[in-house]
Order: sequence, then structure tokens, then C-alpha cells
Amino acid sequence: MLLNCDLGESHGNWVMGMDAEAMPHIDQANIACGFHAGDPLTMRRTLSLAAQHGVSVGAHPAYPDLVGFGRRSMSLSEEEIIADLHFQVAALDGMARNAGLEVSYVKPHGALYNDMMARAEVRDAVLKAISSYHRPLALMLLATPQADAHRAEAGAYGVELLFEAFADRCYEDDGALRSRRKPGAVHSREKMLEQVALLKNEGVVITHGGHTLPLAADTLCVHGDNPEGVQAIRDIRALVHGS
Amino acid sequence: MLLNCDLGESHGNWVMGMDAEAMPHIDQANIACGFHAGDPLTMRRTLSLAAQHGVSVGAHPAYPDLVGFGRRSMSLSEEEIIADLHFQVAALDGMARNAGLEVSYVKPHGALYNDMMARAEVRDAVLKAISSYHRPLALMLLATPQADAHRAEAGAYGVELLFEAFADRCYEDDGALRSRRKPGAVHSREKMLEQVALLKNEGVVITHGGHTLPLAADTLCVHGDNPEGVQAIRDIRALVHGS
Amino acid sequence: MLLNCDLGESHGNWVMGMDAEAMPHIDQANIACGFHAGDPLTMRRTLSLAAQHGVSVGAHPAYPDLVGFGRRSMSLSEEEIIADLHFQVAALDGMARNAGLEVSYVKPHGALYNDMMARAEVRDAVLKAISSYHRPLALMLLATPQADAHRAEAGAYGVELLFEAFADRCYEDDGALRSRRKPGAVHSREKMLEQVALLKNEGVVITHGGHTLPLAADTLCVHGDNPEGVQAIRDIRALVHGS
Amino acid sequence: MLLNCDLGESHGNWVMGMDAEAMPHIDQANIACGFHAGDPLTMRRTLSLAAQHGVSVGAHPAYPDLVGFGRRSMSLSEEEIIADLHFQVAALDGMARNAGLEVSYVKPHGALYNDMMARAEVRDAVLKAISSYHRPLALMLLATPQADAHRAEAGAYGVELLFEAFADRCYEDDGALRSRRKPGAVHSREKMLEQVALLKNEGVVITHGGHTLPLAADTLCVHGDNPEGVQAIRDIRALVHGS
Repeated sequence: MLLNCDLGESHGNWVMGMDAEAMPHIDQANIACGFHAGDPLTMRRTLSLAAQHGVSVGAHPAYPDLVGFGRRSMSLSEEEIIADLHFQVAALDGMARNAGLEVSYVKPHGALYNDMMARAEVRDAVLKAISSYHRPLALMLLATPQADAHRAEAGAYGVELLFEAFADRCYEDDGALRSRRKPGAVHSREKMLEQVALLKNEGVVITHGGHTLPLAADTLCVHGDNPEGVQAIRDIRALVHGS
Repeated sequence: MLLNCDLGESHGNWVMGMDAEAMPHIDQANIACGFHAGDPLTMRRTLSLAAQHGVSVGAHPAYPDLVGFGRRSMSLSEEEIIADLHFQVAALDGMARNAGLEVSYVKPHGALYNDMMARAEVRDAVLKAISSYHRPLALMLLATPQADAHRAEAGAYGVELLFEAFADRCYEDDGALRSRRKPGAVHSREKMLEQVALLKNEGVVITHGGHTLPLAADTLCVHGDNPEGVQAIRDIRALVHGS
Repeated sequence: MLLNCDLGESHGNWVMGMDAEAMPHIDQANIACGFHAGDPLTMRRTLSLAAQHGVSVGAHPAYPDLVGFGRRSMSLSEEEIIADLHFQVAALDGMARNAGLEVSYVKPHGALYNDMMARAEVRDAVLKAISSYHRPLALMLLATPQADAHRAEAGAYGVELLFEAFADRCYEDDGALRSRRKPGAVHSREKMLEQVALLKNEGVVITHGGHTLPLAADTLCVHGDNPEGVQAIRDIRALVHGS
Repeated sequence: MLLNCDLGESHGNWVMGMDAEAMPHIDQANIACGFHAGDPLTMRRTLSLAAQHGVSVGAHPAYPDLVGFGRRSMSLSEEEIIADLHFQVAALDGMARNAGLEVSYVKPHGALYNDMMARAEVRDAVLKAISSYHRPLALMLLATPQADAHRAEAGAYGVELLFEAFADRCYEDDGALRSRRKPGAVHSREKMLEQVALLKNEGVVITHGGHTLPLAADTLCVHGDNPEGVQAIRDIRALVHGS
């Protein structure tokens, strides 16, 4: 099980995230591509940091909504989703090659990620975008009880999937992430480490309702926004990788 | 001598240029990359049109100034110019590959083009950007009496140059384009064709002051903004390529 | 019955609409405020044109989506809708005063208009924005069979309503505009003039299903995008105002 | 002598500045208007904070350059500067009125401020913009040995000037601020308080070269970016206002 983290979310003069502190401890960096965060110079610096630490890079494309940080759903047509994804992935991919790297996967950001999980037509547009990119890329999405159905959809396009689970988020009985607006949505440090251990050793989580839910996760989403988050990454890494 | 034309300069709902009419008659399409014009969908459509007509594609990057159409000079640092060029070129290049094409050159747009011709440090930043791209790209710039000096500068970076001349613009005695604010800056159809013929057959232009100025041009810049421009392209093509 | 028209929809170098041709024949100009179209210079020029022809000005605010021309729905929170409307209305209002004018109403644009008509919470946010503006402004919205309910909602906020009908659009039996994706959505010139005459003389339209639907319209939405549209405005004006 | 501070420089999800901590201790808030920082919701919150603490508000307009934070010079035409200033000032002014406030002055930001101080034609465009606003606004600019000349220029447009001095910046012998790239550009806390005391009691600063330079300052620019800056504001306030 790998650790993935959203990075490169600064924009111009505005700093967000502790990229330099988080990068040494993760396996996969999901890098913003300018639509919800990031700008050419920020992308360049984040890629350089990833190269320095031997971290895999993925594109973290979003709806074109800088003010809303890509967290507001937008009703884009299929061809708009495809073109927006191609643009963002290509920009990061070319810049990655300039840094001696190569984008290996795509993880949609924010509202685009949520819409992709919730609506088949958005998922279909994302798969079409990835399968029509000029070289193979995996799609990172949420590990849910629908994983087999998602694998079948992706398989029809020849797209490999990477399923991610969340270390610090509580799951509902149906496998959805518990809404941040509800109590108990985010785990304490102790419960987070329990959840990671369960995911690693038994491939399950204990849901909010107390049920045992099987979740096969290829990668764990961790957060590098603040010192507590960075410490949590180190703790999770020790648990998962033994270092 | 080839014909190059700025295309893909629509933006969202706003249409600019007669791309479909101009594309069949040119050799090289300079395609906007989103900073002064263009958007992911427009880029996709323009690339598709280029593929259909077998036209070479070049990136047409600009300062980040949509409202000013990239025509207003901006004081960017060297690393900002490099990152902005890498981002734009990479976005177009990846999308070009999705369409079975490959970006082969870079022609800076508007104020960035003018600043590059006028200021050695901007030219140096542009050359650094191109030479640090992950594969070889040529730089298209203005054919002037300083061509040898420019070739030496580019050679130090291992960058190939493509010199362009203007079919319809009057040249000053020093080889600069006559400012559009002055009378006689833009040639009549007849004088334009005379200038093209001279460039092709003798490698010279007659300047505003009446002097004969040698200009070795690899490519001619033509305009596809309106029906007259498109007709001019056809006329110039007949003269240069015999069809 | 007045004539209102969306104007000021150019952006930087991109021209849209025949503002100078349409302005002399309308009563109310709905002016874009920069979020879907318009930019400071375009707004300034459009206001100057309105002042010259004695046309009332309204703000035409939108979701922040330049590439999508404000036609893509976005999930904004109530406080985001309020702040975005205040910003856009205030910008136009202050610039209008510089031109000796005053914004007198607000007509949301595109997807924001559609969302306002379709969803009570968006309508409520728009009404809150208008009622918390520092001086009274009317809200322009679609005349439908729900006009009384809308008037009650607005009345609770002390906001005056201006109901608009469409000259050239076919109505469904339930009072909705027939979707542009369906046949018969846009009337021929002859049917358009019939609809205007019916609206003026009897306060009704004949729906797609052949029913007679009462619609009390304060103003008619007309289009100044192309020569046919401008001619239609002149024809409608002759019918409505007798000149 | 008043204290002015640049505030409202967050953007969407990106936080910049300790506005809530700085606002209680200043007299004048220079509020970003969306072109280099700020967005409608940030502007609304900053205005609400100013209203709560009885702080005067000024517009802090900039070149349209979000990624560069308005710190990169742009070659705008006179009419572009005027329209851009009108748009930004009007947006803030209308939103200020919604909060029971009124914009009373304009302080250009970043590169626009520097260009205004350095180039007569930019200063002239700024003065034209302010004098053609629909009600009187003062212009805040740098107190220099050229104050009388600047007052004469502004007087010709009927524009009142507010001269600001910097508490923490070292002055060159000619009255310019010492470049941040040079050593000694920013004072220690002790030297800052000495400079404030001199400005207040004798209307002079001691320049980098050791000369005594008269500077009549209406207001002091202070910084609320970090805890040290906020503490400095409190210290300066105690020195200037005795509280």
C-alpha cells in the first residue's frame, strides 16, 4: 500500500501546504495543474521536489475554478471535461519530463473527483479522456464496494485503476466517506492509525455504524497541510512501510 | 519558404480568425496555448484541423494576459518566463500527440515576441526555456540584419532558429517592422505580392526608405483573420509554392 | 412593454454583439460585468453608448466562468452568490455613475438565470443579494405562470420584479421556454412578430401545444448578436412603441 | 499621522495576512479589489471587519495579474489604467456601502504604485481615473522630496493627496525607498521605532547615507502579514497615537 498526497497547491504568492516537509515521506504526489491551484512556477518547483525524493507524480486536474479551489461542481459537457483533462495532464506531463519524471496516473480533484464517483457520465468522460491520452495513464479513484463495477467500466477503455482509501476519514456503512459536516467525520490520530493497520493487515475498515467493510486499497490518501498532517504521514509511513 | 499563420485564437464562446478557411493553405500553424487566447477545447479543435490538413504545429505562447491578448509587455523574471513557456508548450505538445501530431517549434506571441526581439535578457530566457524542454524544438523569430548574432546566441544553447519575414508589412531601413501607427506600415495587395516575390527570388525587401535589405527568411507570416487575409494567403501560396 | 437586450459581451480583443447597432433601438441594456463577459474597458464603452442613447442600464451578473460564458451551472453557496452579485453590480454601478447613469435593475445571466428560475434557494440568494445592496434595485426574471409566487417571495425582501418575455422563443404548455435542442424552439420572423403582438395586445402567448397562456410581461428580451437580430429589434420596436 | 495597512489579500482558499489581528490597531485599510488579490467574499469579510473597528477604507487596485500578485509592471494604455481603476474602485466602493462604509481614497498596489511614482504618464492616468470617478477620492502615494510637484499635478485635477511614509523601510538620500535587494533595506524593530518618532516629531528621516531628509507624511504604511508585523503595528500605534 502506497501513500499519496495532494501537493503543489500554492498559487503565485499564496503558499498552501508543507510540500517540502511532506514530500520525503510519500510515494505518490498528486500535483495541481493550474485550474484549481498551482501555476507554472509552482508546478516546476513541486516537480523538482518530487524528482529529488524519487516520488511518483500524478496529475491532479480540476474544474476551472481558482476562487472556489475546484470544490464547486460545474456542469461541463463531455468534450469540455476531456479537453480540460488533456490540457492539464499534458501541461504537467511535459513539465515532468523536463524534470526527468513522467506522469503515471491521474487523480481528479475536489468536485470533479466527487462528481466522478457519483455520476456515471462524468466517470465515463474521465475514462475517455485518459484512454485518449497519447500514452497509458492510470486513474486513481476511491476504493468503494463498487470497485468491481468501476474496474469493469475502466477495463472497457483499457484504463488501469488505482484505488485509494483515506487514513483519517470515517466511512459510512455504504462505503461513502462520512461528510465533513457530520460529527465523527475525521478520525483522531489513534483511530486513524487503527484504520491504517486494519486496511493494511485485513483489507477492511470499521464503518461509522460499526460494520466491517472490505476495501482493497492500492494507496492511502494522506495530507500535508500542517505540522500535524506531516507528523501523521510519518506515523502512517512507519506503520505501512516500516520506516 | 513556408507559410506560417497564428491560429487557435478563439476563446470559449468568442470566435476569432477563420481557422478552417486558412488551415488548408498554410504549412505551419502557430497555435495559442491559453495565456493570451485559446482554451482547451479550442486547442483541441485547432489541432484536429491541423492534423486533417497535414500542417506542422508550433506553440504560440504568450504573457499571461487574456484581456490584453498578450500584447502588453510584462516584466517577468527569467524563471517565470521559463516556467510559463514550459507550461504552455507542454500543454499544446501533449494535446498535439493526442491528435497524432508533434509540436516542432515555438513562436512567442505579441509583447513576448517583441520583447524577445528587443531585449537580450528576454531572448536568453526564451532560449533557456526551449533548450531545457525535454526534446528539441526550434525557435521562430523575426528575420533581421541581426540574424547571425541571433544564430550565435541560439547555437550556444543548441537551439535551431526559424527566421520569419512578413509578407504584408513594410520594413524600416534598419530591418525593423514599420510601426502600425505610421502611414505605409501595411502593404497593399500588390506591394505585398511584390515583397513576397523579392523575398523568394532575391532574398531581399525594399525598405520604407527605398533601400534593398537582405533578409533570409525560412517562413512567411500570413494572416487568416478575415476573408481578405485568407485570399492573400492563397495568392501568396500560389507565388511561393506554385499552388 | 419595454425592450431589453444583453450587451457589452465582448472581452478584451474579442468582439461579440452589435452593440452600437442595437443600442439606439432598445430601452434597457443588460450589461455584462466581467464574470462571463465584459472587461473594464468594454463596460466603460457600453455604458457610454447607453448614456448617448438614453437607455436604462441593468447589471447582467453571472457565475465566474469566462471560458463557459456563464452558461455552465456552478454549485455556489448562498454567501458566494451574494458576494459575487454585489461585486459585479457594484462595479457596473460605480462605472455607470461615472458615465452619468445609474444601474436600476439586475438580470442574472445564463446558468445563474436558469438556476434562479428552477431552484428556490438560488432565487432566495439572489433576492438576499439585491435586498442587501445599498440602494433599491429591481430583479428581472422570466414571466411564467408562477409570477404571483415569485412576486410574493420578492415582496418579502422588498424587491421589485420586472418580468420579461421572449419575442422569438416558443413556450411550452407549462410556461417554460422550449429547449433550444428541440425543433420549433426559435420562432421565424413572422411567428415572432405574432407573439409580440399577442403579448402586447392580449397578454398571452400560444404555446407549443397550442394552448393560450397568459403572461404579463414588463419587458421583452431581444437579441443584438447579428444583422438579423438587429433588424428584428427594429421590427419589434415598431410594433410595440410605434417607432 | 495615521496608520495604513494593506489588507484583504487572501484569495479564495488561500489565506494571506492577519487581517483580524491587524484591523483593530490601524486607521486606514487598503483593501485589495480582485486584480492582484481579494475576491468578492474576501472583500466582503474585510469590509465587515473594517466596519466593526471603525477603520477608514481605501481601494488598493492593481494591474490585472493574480499570479504575479500585481508586482510585475505591465504596459497598459491610459484608457486601460482608467477603466481598470474605475472597475476596481467601484466594486469595492459599492460593497463598502453595503457594509455602511464608503471608500475615501485610492492607493495603487505593487507595480502600479511603483510605476505611478516613477513615470509621469502613469501618474497622470491615475489622476485622470480618480478625478473622473463620480465622487471625490484622495490618492495615497509616497512622501518624497517631489511632494510639491506631485501636489501641483494633482491640484490640476482637483485630487487631494495623502502622503505616506514607511515605518520599517530605509530611505536613500534621494528619498527613494532602499531596494529590498540591498542590505539595510528593512529596519530592525528599534530603528523602525526611531524612524517613526523622527517622522512624528520632526518630520524627517535619516537616510541610508546619514542625511536628514524632510518628509511630511499624512500616514504611515505598516504591515500585518505575520505576528511580528502585528506587534510592530501595536508598538507604532502606541508611539503615534499614545494607545
